[in-house]
Amino acid sequence: MAGLISQDLNVVNIGLASFGDVIREKGGKATDLQWQPPAGGNPKDAWNLALLTGDPRIAEANKLAYGRYLAAQPFLVGVKTAREALPDMDGRIILHSGPPVTWENMCGPQQGAVLGAVLFEGWAGDLDGARRLVEAGSIRLEPCHHHRAVGPMAGITSPSMPVWIVRDATSGNEAYSNMNEGLGKVLRFGANGPDVIARLKWMAETMGPTLAVIVEEMGGLDLKPIMAQALHMGDEVHNRNAAASSLLFRKLTTTALASKRLDAKAVAETLTFVAGNDHFFLNLSMAACKAMLDAAHGVPCSTLVTAMARNGVEFGIKISGLDRWFTAEAPFIEGLFFPGYGQADAARDLGDSAITETAGVGGFAMAAAPAIVQFVGGTPRDALANTLRMLNITLGQNPAFTLPALDFTGSPAGIDARLVADTGIQPVINTGIAHREAGIGQVGAGLTYAPLACFSQAVSALAETMTFDA
Amino acid sequence: MAGLISQDLNVVNIGLASFGDVIREKGGKATDLQWQPPAGGNPKDAWNLALLTGDPRIAEANKLAYGRYLAAQPFLVGVKTAREALPDMDGRIILHSGPPVTWENMCGPQQGAVLGAVLFEGWAGDLDGARRLVEAGSIRLEPCHHHRAVGPMAGITSPSMPVWIVRDATSGNEAYSNMNEGLGKVLRFGANGPDVIARLKWMAETMGPTLAVIVEEMGGLDLKPIMAQALHMGDEVHNRNAAASSLLFRKLTTTALASKRLDAKAVAETLTFVAGNDHFFLNLSMAACKAMLDAAHGVPCSTLVTAMARNGVEFGIKISGLDRWFTAEAPFIEGLFFPGYGQADAARDLGDSAITETAGVGGFAMAAAPAIVQFVGGTPRDALANTLRMLNITLGQNPAFTLPALDFTGSPAGIDARLVADTGIQPVINTGIAHREAGIGQVGAGLTYAPLACFSQAVSALAETMTFDA
Repeated sequence: MAGLISQDLNVVNIGLASFGDVIREKGGKATDLQWQPPAGGNPKDAWNLALLTGDPRIAEANKLAYGRYLAAQPFLVGVKTAREALPDMDGRIILHSGPPVTWENMCGPQQGAVLGAVLFEGWAGDLDGARRLVEAGSIRLEPCHHHRAVGPMAGITSPSMPVWIVRDATSGNEAYSNMNEGLGKVLRFGANGPDVIARLKWMAETMGPTLAVIVEEMGGLDLKPIMAQALHMGDEVHNRNAAASSLLFRKLTTTALASKRLDAKAVAETLTFVAGNDHFFLNLSMAACKAMLDAAHGVPCSTLVTAMARNGVEFGIKISGLDRWFTAEAPFIEGLFFPGYGQADAARDLGDSAITETAGVGGFAMAAAPAIVQFVGGTPRDALANTLRMLNITLGQNPAFTLPALDFTGSPAGIDARLVADTGIQPVINTGIAHREAGIGQVGAGLTYAPLACFSQAVSALAETMTFDA
Repeated sequence: MAGLISQDLNVVNIGLASFGDVIREKGGKATDLQWQPPAGGNPKDAWNLALLTGDPRIAEANKLAYGRYLAAQPFLVGVKTAREALPDMDGRIILHSGPPVTWENMCGPQQGAVLGAVLFEGWAGDLDGARRLVEAGSIRLEPCHHHRAVGPMAGITSPSMPVWIVRDATSGNEAYSNMNEGLGKVLRFGANGPDVIARLKWMAETMGPTLAVIVEEMGGLDLKPIMAQALHMGDEVHNRNAAASSLLFRKLTTTALASKRLDAKAVAETLTFVAGNDHFFLNLSMAACKAMLDAAHGVPCSTLVTAMARNGVEFGIKISGLDRWFTAEAPFIEGLFFPGYGQADAARDLGDSAITETAGVGGFAMAAAPAIVQFVGGTPRDALANTLRMLNITLGQNPAFTLPALDFTGSPAGIDARLVADTGIQPVINTGIAHREAGIGQVGAGLTYAPLACFSQAVSALAETMTFDA
């Protein structure tokens, strides 16, 4: 002990950095260790978290749910309109990304996209008319997730839009996603001008029916192998889909070339559109992830996270054991802005695309996609570190999604809400940044982190449904 | 000194490992440091190397040659038959890979491919007839490199075969390559059965003319950006071309779909063939590399390596300052064999495809392609190490070919024969392994290393053309 006191001070400071500052000011050395109390320091949540930690019912439930996620085999099986494919799409309904939100509370780009969808459906002749209809409450606004669907950014999906139909061959459940419009002025970033509506009409009238025939003639498409292959080609299948889109394009093209049922002009237009969009695979990746996670949803007592989704106002998650949303304020995004834009222009985190991270790809698989840092910021080393950090909050590594840069180990997958609440390590998400006003579009891309509060709440709520021995 | 002697022995042993063994046997510690004398220990070559090291004429010449390599802008500008495109292709001539070799000395797969080409050209009706023609000396056998061309593996290129025409927009020089037949039984691995010949005929009659129109209608194609993009998508554009082939396919397809001059059946057949071959881009990559290096060739006093090529018997290199081959016995390849095959089945290193490594991609850019180790062996860490080791023998890093895993630094490029001879670090090459007998095909893939003797000879030969102050 005498030796300890006579030495120069060399302190590891856990928690508040200001305690370390005091030592440093006196000439001592202090290394700050980032730490925060479990469940964000909320005593009730921390108590509930302690109750669930080590509970064999949770472990059992998570094993079952995680096994179902791993066993899922999402196949692209068809293309139909949302009205035909999705449950409960009758009448005037528009789906949006994230947890439920009212028209009044929606962020700018989501409002802009809703109005665009009203025009696309022909329910109003101009934006003012569309706004009056929506404000009068004559259009149902519901989350995509409530209809087994997902949509990137604003997520707006209306009945006449074509959707991908993805079926999990193991569980038989289906998931859906709208189709990717490309970059620039597009509905998902809140743009709703005549060119945007015209493109949506072409997608509904020409591209959707053409892809429907192609998908039918190719006899469906096994999506996990394409995602796995893309992870070996520099994609993380959320914000980088260049390889996956190329692989998809090749399959669509060879089928189309062999088909005798298709109109040559429609094929040429469709394939040229697909070829021009490196993000085209994103929506299929999302639907595949949704199918894998829906397979794992609904296991009583499971703390496996089965959805993370944002509407630009709130960030929401679901866990397998409770079919309800746990929400917190949606965060802003740290990233790179396009020339002429900055943080003041940015909307809060938006879109259902965090379903990819929920399924162990996207930000969780950044180690596969070092080149993505040119788009979202940081260095290739940060990309590796993000993947490695997620190992602390996941139930395992998905052997179907291997990462070459990490010696072909599986991507961290299966977020356990308990581990997030306990460690304070927030799930990382690669995402686009929308302008906060309607009609302007994408202004950048970057990283964001799922709010801790969602996970603490979910754990607490689950604990309150269970009984514990005294 | 007293302290040194009384300490336990802890020795760094440079060179022969057996000296270290002696110390280890006595209970001491010895770390072996790999080292060999310059120029492989040949006194004359070592003296010549010493003369050239630090000589300002060499430095100046290398700067000029390397600058020309960097400035090259290879564009795909057309497709024609070898007879139309290549210089001096009149009459009965067949080109082969590597340095010059006589029929008698050719390895099995190259002989098999020569006979196949004779059948394809219709110069004989069967293999026996083909063999008699060749043995009678009535067919000129010359290296591809002597006709500004390159060909993978056997490299066989005959007058009626379609070739890619690549033009360096900076220097105006052209380079050529035959077209990739896919995997399995193919001419370049020495197969020459009826299916191989039928495929070559289809390539000449249908695919070549179709691609000629497509390339013309797309107004050429800038190849360096595609190679650079592929390096960000897990390719090293020698043994892994999945991304580059997909990107090329997309460009060919969109042009073909917009064309009014093409026959739909020919387009469908051609694009389906291209879509089915992840190595289709290889031959274009090779022609692009040949164009970049030919731009750098012919600078007096330059020790920049402008070609590395193998014929399955000899490995040959050229340096910019001397237009002749420096050869040594072709090595075997360390790698992974297909089921049922092993080292005893393998031919020696074969093909002009090492032009990619000469140009700073392939094995030199393995850091971009961690997934390639599943094909050639080793670990992703080895892939990084191979790229880093090549920095010791190259004149710089090509800023056009950046490597995400190494923080977007350029790929090591511009092999200086002096540095190879001095350090003993041999250029690494990713390559396929052919069966040593004709007609069987590929049996594996792996890594090989350019023989040191080629580089020592080249340095010596250059020194002997120069005068030095006493």
